[in-house]
Amino acid sequence: MSKNQKDLYKNKKIGTIPGSVIYTGKKNNNLIIETFDYNKDSCIELELASIEDSFPFKTTETVTWLNINGLNNVVEIEKIGKYYNLHPLVLEDIVNVSQRPKIDEYEDYIFIVLKMLYYDDSKNIISEQVSFILGKHCVLSFQEAEGDVFDSIRDRLRTAKGRIRGLNADYLLYTLIDAVVDHYFNIIETLGTKVEDLETLLFEGNPNETITQDIQGLKREILKVRRAIFPLREVISRIEKHESNLILKKTKTYYRDIYDHIIHVTENIDIYREMIWSLMDMYMTTISNKMNEVMKVLTIMASIFIPLTFIAGIYGMNFENIPELKYENAYFILWGVMIVLFTGMLFYFKRKKWL
Amino acid sequence: MSKNQKDLYKNKKIGTIPGSVIYTGKKNNNLIIETFDYNKDSCIELELASIEDSFPFKTTETVTWLNINGLNNVVEIEKIGKYYNLHPLVLEDIVNVSQRPKIDEYEDYIFIVLKMLYYDDSKNIISEQVSFILGKHCVLSFQEAEGDVFDSIRDRLRTAKGRIRGLNADYLLYTLIDAVVDHYFNIIETLGTKVEDLETLLFEGNPNETITQDIQGLKREILKVRRAIFPLREVISRIEKHESNLILKKTKTYYRDIYDHIIHVTENIDIYREMIWSLMDMYMTTISNKMNEVMKVLTIMASIFIPLTFIAGIYGMNFENIPELKYENAYFILWGVMIVLFTGMLFYFKRKKWL
Amino acid sequence: MSKNQKDLYKNKKIGTIPGSVIYTGKKNNNLIIETFDYNKDSCIELELASIEDSFPFKTTETVTWLNINGLNNVVEIEKIGKYYNLHPLVLEDIVNVSQRPKIDEYEDYIFIVLKMLYYDDSKNIISEQVSFILGKHCVLSFQEAEGDVFDSIRDRLRTAKGRIRGLNADYLLYTLIDAVVDHYFNIIETLGTKVEDLETLLFEGNPNETITQDIQGLKREILKVRRAIFPLREVISRIEKHESNLILKKTKTYYRDIYDHIIHVTENIDIYREMIWSLMDMYMTTISNKMNEVMKVLTIMASIFIPLTFIAGIYGMNFENIPELKYENAYFILWGVMIVLFTGMLFYFKRKKWL
Amino acid sequence: MSKNQKDLYKNKKIGTIPGSVIYTGKKNNNLIIETFDYNKDSCIELELASIEDSFPFKTTETVTWLNINGLNNVVEIEKIGKYYNLHPLVLEDIVNVSQRPKIDEYEDYIFIVLKMLYYDDSKNIISEQVSFILGKHCVLSFQEAEGDVFDSIRDRLRTAKGRIRGLNADYLLYTLIDAVVDHYFNIIETLGTKVEDLETLLFEGNPNETITQDIQGLKREILKVRRAIFPLREVISRIEKHESNLILKKTKTYYRDIYDHIIHVTENIDIYREMIWSLMDMYMTTISNKMNEVMKVLTIMASIFIPLTFIAGIYGMNFENIPELKYENAYFILWGVMIVLFTGMLFYFKRKKWL
Amino acid sequence: MSKNQKDLYKNKKIGTIPGSVIYTGKKNNNLIIETFDYNKDSCIELELASIEDSFPFKTTETVTWLNINGLNNVVEIEKIGKYYNLHPLVLEDIVNVSQRPKIDEYEDYIFIVLKMLYYDDSKNIISEQVSFILGKHCVLSFQEAEGDVFDSIRDRLRTAKGRIRGLNADYLLYTLIDAVVDHYFNIIETLGTKVEDLETLLFEGNPNETITQDIQGLKREILKVRRAIFPLREVISRIEKHESNLILKKTKTYYRDIYDHIIHVTENIDIYREMIWSLMDMYMTTISNKMNEVMKVLTIMASIFIPLTFIAGIYGMNFENIPELKYENAYFILWGVMIVLFTGMLFYFKRKKWL
Repeated sequence: MSKNQKDLYKNKKIGTIPGSVIYTGKKNNNLIIETFDYNKDSCIELELASIEDSFPFKTTETVTWLNINGLNNVVEIEKIGKYYNLHPLVLEDIVNVSQRPKIDEYEDYIFIVLKMLYYDDSKNIISEQVSFILGKHCVLSFQEAEGDVFDSIRDRLRTAKGRIRGLNADYLLYTLIDAVVDHYFNIIETLGTKVEDLETLLFEGNPNETITQDIQGLKREILKVRRAIFPLREVISRIEKHESNLILKKTKTYYRDIYDHIIHVTENIDIYREMIWSLMDMYMTTISNKMNEVMKVLTIMASIFIPLTFIAGIYGMNFENIPELKYENAYFILWGVMIVLFTGMLFYFKRKKWL
Repeated sequence: MSKNQKDLYKNKKIGTIPGSVIYTGKKNNNLIIETFDYNKDSCIELELASIEDSFPFKTTETVTWLNINGLNNVVEIEKIGKYYNLHPLVLEDIVNVSQRPKIDEYEDYIFIVLKMLYYDDSKNIISEQVSFILGKHCVLSFQEAEGDVFDSIRDRLRTAKGRIRGLNADYLLYTLIDAVVDHYFNIIETLGTKVEDLETLLFEGNPNETITQDIQGLKREILKVRRAIFPLREVISRIEKHESNLILKKTKTYYRDIYDHIIHVTENIDIYREMIWSLMDMYMTTISNKMNEVMKVLTIMASIFIPLTFIAGIYGMNFENIPELKYENAYFILWGVMIVLFTGMLFYFKRKKWL
Repeated sequence: MSKNQKDLYKNKKIGTIPGSVIYTGKKNNNLIIETFDYNKDSCIELELASIEDSFPFKTTETVTWLNINGLNNVVEIEKIGKYYNLHPLVLEDIVNVSQRPKIDEYEDYIFIVLKMLYYDDSKNIISEQVSFILGKHCVLSFQEAEGDVFDSIRDRLRTAKGRIRGLNADYLLYTLIDAVVDHYFNIIETLGTKVEDLETLLFEGNPNETITQDIQGLKREILKVRRAIFPLREVISRIEKHESNLILKKTKTYYRDIYDHIIHVTENIDIYREMIWSLMDMYMTTISNKMNEVMKVLTIMASIFIPLTFIAGIYGMNFENIPELKYENAYFILWGVMIVLFTGMLFYFKRKKWL
Repeated sequence: MSKNQKDLYKNKKIGTIPGSVIYTGKKNNNLIIETFDYNKDSCIELELASIEDSFPFKTTETVTWLNINGLNNVVEIEKIGKYYNLHPLVLEDIVNVSQRPKIDEYEDYIFIVLKMLYYDDSKNIISEQVSFILGKHCVLSFQEAEGDVFDSIRDRLRTAKGRIRGLNADYLLYTLIDAVVDHYFNIIETLGTKVEDLETLLFEGNPNETITQDIQGLKREILKVRRAIFPLREVISRIEKHESNLILKKTKTYYRDIYDHIIHVTENIDIYREMIWSLMDMYMTTISNKMNEVMKVLTIMASIFIPLTFIAGIYGMNFENIPELKYENAYFILWGVMIVLFTGMLFYFKRKKWL
Repeated sequence: MSKNQKDLYKNKKIGTIPGSVIYTGKKNNNLIIETFDYNKDSCIELELASIEDSFPFKTTETVTWLNINGLNNVVEIEKIGKYYNLHPLVLEDIVNVSQRPKIDEYEDYIFIVLKMLYYDDSKNIISEQVSFILGKHCVLSFQEAEGDVFDSIRDRLRTAKGRIRGLNADYLLYTLIDAVVDHYFNIIETLGTKVEDLETLLFEGNPNETITQDIQGLKREILKVRRAIFPLREVISRIEKHESNLILKKTKTYYRDIYDHIIHVTENIDIYREMIWSLMDMYMTTISNKMNEVMKVLTIMASIFIPLTFIAGIYGMNFENIPELKYENAYFILWGVMIVLFTGMLFYFKRKKWL
């Protein structure tokens, strides 16, 4: 079990009061508050010093994206919760980074938890939690640490590329989720390459002994990715069916598109999963084949030489009366017999396709 | 099969009258009646001498939590049943500790059966039944024996920590169930550690012979936990959909939270289950690999020495006319031949990667 | 395939007219008609001479239980069918004892088919078909042969124990079905013991060769039990949802209870099923382990003695010039060399954990 | 893959115009048109010379059963289609004998495709397509060739046995389908016997080498039967739910009965399927067990004689100074030592249960 | 993993703006615009020079089929999108050739994505994406490259064969989809032949070593075909349920027919899938059987000659006093003993069925 996977349940704090806001991730992140406030005509981008500075944006008619990094700053997050009137359980879920992806629909906002998946430098899959709050004119996003997959969106906001600046917060949320889901394709591609590499190794027929561990490791990676992505299908389909005016009807087409992508990803995951199970089978077959080869060598050597040795043994006996021993050419005749036996058996094994 | 598991069905009393209240657990527990009666302003905590002392609390407007330990005191429990107007089948289910988790909705109360899971001193999973009755202003809880997972709730009631004192009985029930479910994370964590340990043992490649029993045992533990937890999903989702005023709408958000936790737990169980099946596969592979290694040693030893022994046998023969025997250096030449054969075969096996 | 299992489909009579009442069970049972006619105050118990004697009970307001044993008496059963106005297919199903459990709802009666499971003297599972007709004030039950699981109910009727005498026919039907389902727990318990015994045998590591047959047999028993019990879930849940006044609303709580029991039983069956599949795996592992052990002994013996024999062979050669042969202590030195080789190899195998 | 199975998809004619009536079966069947026209009082049975002769029966109030054998006579079948006003796709489906079982509901008729299963003389399962058109007062049935399972129905029509003559076309259709389904029990019974035979062969522990092919063949037969029968469940359940006056309400009870039979058959198929997978497991176990036995013999022979041969080798050496060689009784003492070694090892293997 | 499969997800362009029209296939295709404009009486067939030339056809009452080959000409396709008022996501999906089959229903058109499957010259399955837009009087089809399965439809349009010219665009779409689905039968047939060939190879008992790779390759092909075909079921069933006047009620019967074909294809895929898993099992059995055979030869050779060699060794010893050595006929008697031993053991192995 990898460190991360274990964290998933270790982080649950047993015996605490429900609704208490306790951060369960790693502790070393600074609070970074990034703000985009835009409409068709303008776009203000700010990095705020304190949470309080973000409050004025709530009341404007423009669309606001508040991106908060560093969930360990629980006090600040509780302030946002208070100001934006969030349910205590929502705040608890935001800072408890061992949530599974889910959606909770409240009267005047929607709360969504996703998993952002990426590979770290040592090629382990990292799963970072991102939470979104979709309000009337704003999207709040909460990340464990700095660094994310949203740079292209920031770019589009700054340069007014695409439709994004002209549309509402529900479209912004769509682009954010879409960016996360787009990254899943990266993960899937890398998983595919790994499966392919293992397969090549097996096809070449000479896998090293750590291959079972590699297969096992890959199996676990796929389980992990599955767990992060599968619940998303329900999340998105509930957004599509959402009935308030937070999600406009024309935006739902876009969410339908994300849904299709997720189905695409999950189908690929299932295919890789099946292929990995196949790999284990193939490995077992490889082992069996090798054992067979070893057995054949042993059988051939033993079968050929054991009878010959027996014959040699016979004429090594010390009986006083062994007539053959006295014939002048007996030794050479015996060699002839042995060579015939030898080639006969070779021929027999050849016909049996053991050679 | 562990003792406990067998009890689960042995406890069913065949041929008894339906609705007869017969205790099926272990017999040696005293009746302990614990009462909390509270509202926002005050909290009375009592340990009652007899069941009858608890009856006055029923009519108060304050929230009452009646916690009864010791289900073998059937007579007392029937008194409660009578006073609180419970259905005979409910009483039967309370004292029959081999129930599966379930919910029964009656007109003026809800009846819930859960399994409290914890490890005993010898690291076996113990599954203790807890039943709850949720009435208008009261929660009745029934446990087999003393000792439970509710201490943090008692504390909160005494010190008015959190929201609990200001809310109604449905919130109390939520905190109680939440405490039970929180403990499942403990179980899951320990199961995870066990799976991890077995995996490490297998990866190191030298498992002892009892590992199949360990894997088998772990499989059974997981089946047991699954059986205790899986039905809970339905229980909680039926609480969420419950339509009377016993469960307030604003409390349902909290039950939704428990539901998410249970899904989280069950997903982990399924992952561990799949990992354990994988472990068995890995073990089989380990055995096969070892057999392969043994075979190789045998094959190498036999293949190298059998032909050499044959040659020695040849010159051990007693033919009168074996010309080689008379050459002065024949013996040393033969040694040379043998050494060439020996190293040749070593080289051959090296190239085949058997060495 | 056991005899009984095959009967299940052999009994189907191909090419007969639909609705023709043809008995498909064993032929040697006498017709026994047992009647209980009761209300709160009185209970008449009769063993009737002929079917016709039972007809007067139909019109009384009291609850009547008509229990017919011996389905081979087709003519008599057709008389009942006529008098009680039963659909021809119902009569066909009653005497065709290879039905699967099912429920058919007609306008003024409900028809239910169950399987009564018990062990015969040679510990085979016997599956006997029981059919019930629930009318307004009567329950008709049809059994293949004498002997059933209803004695405790007869007792309760006679002695007015429990609620049974004060309630209507739908409650009587409930107690009858409950008695059948209660017996399933017996079956499950015995199956559990059998699984446990096989497991112990395997854990001790020295299973006899018939164990695969035992496992296979157990698998088939479980399939059989499953087939008898699984359809019951649907039967009971349709009783719960039944909308006529044949089933009173307050009785449905009791049927809910049966439903819970059946779920409990089916969950146990599934667990045992999974455990048996595991047992087969374990058996394969045991075989592999043993083979490994055998291989090791062979490898050690061969690896140690083959080189030593080779050395002995060398000095058995008859070359005229083998200098070593003439050294005084050569023989003893050789022994020393061999002992060193021998212990060296022993040590090597010890280090490899083969000894 | 059997010939028949391949035909199933080969028959599809790629690139043809939808709705074109092209026969896909074997070509050598004569057109045979059989007519039954009956009501309660009379029954006319005719073998018609041409399709056109059947048209007058359409308008009568009596029930007409038109049974057409020989689907290769496409022109005639198109005439029927025109006269009875059938959809072009229906005609296409009738003569395309590679349909899967299905039902198509049109405004004034129902179209049903079934598979009639029977064993041919060389015990292969033959699957012949039968199509039915249910009109207001008529049933049209289309078969590939002469010979079917409907003889008992013809008999009942002629002799007015059972209810059939007094009821409408929907009941006739029921008896026809019932006859087809009844025959499935034959198939299931034979499959069961085959599984049983293979199991016995395996239990006796000495299966011949073709058993894997037999198992594989049986697997394929079961797949074929499944494919023919499984879709029928949906067909029948849609007849039950059909809402026009083509199917009378009181006839639906009978269709419910067929539905139960099909469920019964499919459950048996699934059981046999699971048993066959088990058989393969058992066969693998048998092989492993045999290999084990072979290994043991080898190990015992080698382990016993290799050390003894070594000892003999020692005293075959030609050292000049081997003191033992000169002792008078050395040879006999050595025999004693060897016998002790021999029996000691025998005893050791006995204790290990290898003998 | 085949090249094509990898392309499926590699083509996804991460970080692009949603709704941006970026072609993801191979780049070397010319734009070919083919137009059929027809009604009952006339049919105009044109190959257009530029997209703009196709626009006049939009407003005519006649049915128009616009077939566009060469999706890399993104600019032209965007022009169509603009003129026909298509949603940006639709255009994105048309040129992103890694879509899974799907349907999107818009207000005045339906968008469908299919996969056209065929074998290329080196017998690899090629999956080419085809998209359809169904408008009021027009069908737009988009293909990656020239060459398709629609030639028979072109023919029918030109020659007014069948119903096609007299019906609306929804029927045209049906014939196009039908042509694609018809081709799946080709694929299935080839897959079936491949499975059959592998099976024959295995049944003959002497598979070459690449068979695991063939099985693995076939498994992957089937996964690929499944992924292309399975989602189609939902697509077609949603067409059937579509509620606008784009799809006439009488055309839906035809779509029902396609649906049946797809079910037929998918069932065959599942059967082949199960057969391939079986093949792997059979291969493992073949290996085990061979190993068994090898073991037997070894065991027989060793078991027969090892004791004989031991005896020869005994009389090769140099003890001064071995009485047997001096008997005149001892050598010949020994031969007799050895021959008896030899035949005895042969007989024993024969009885064990090892020979």
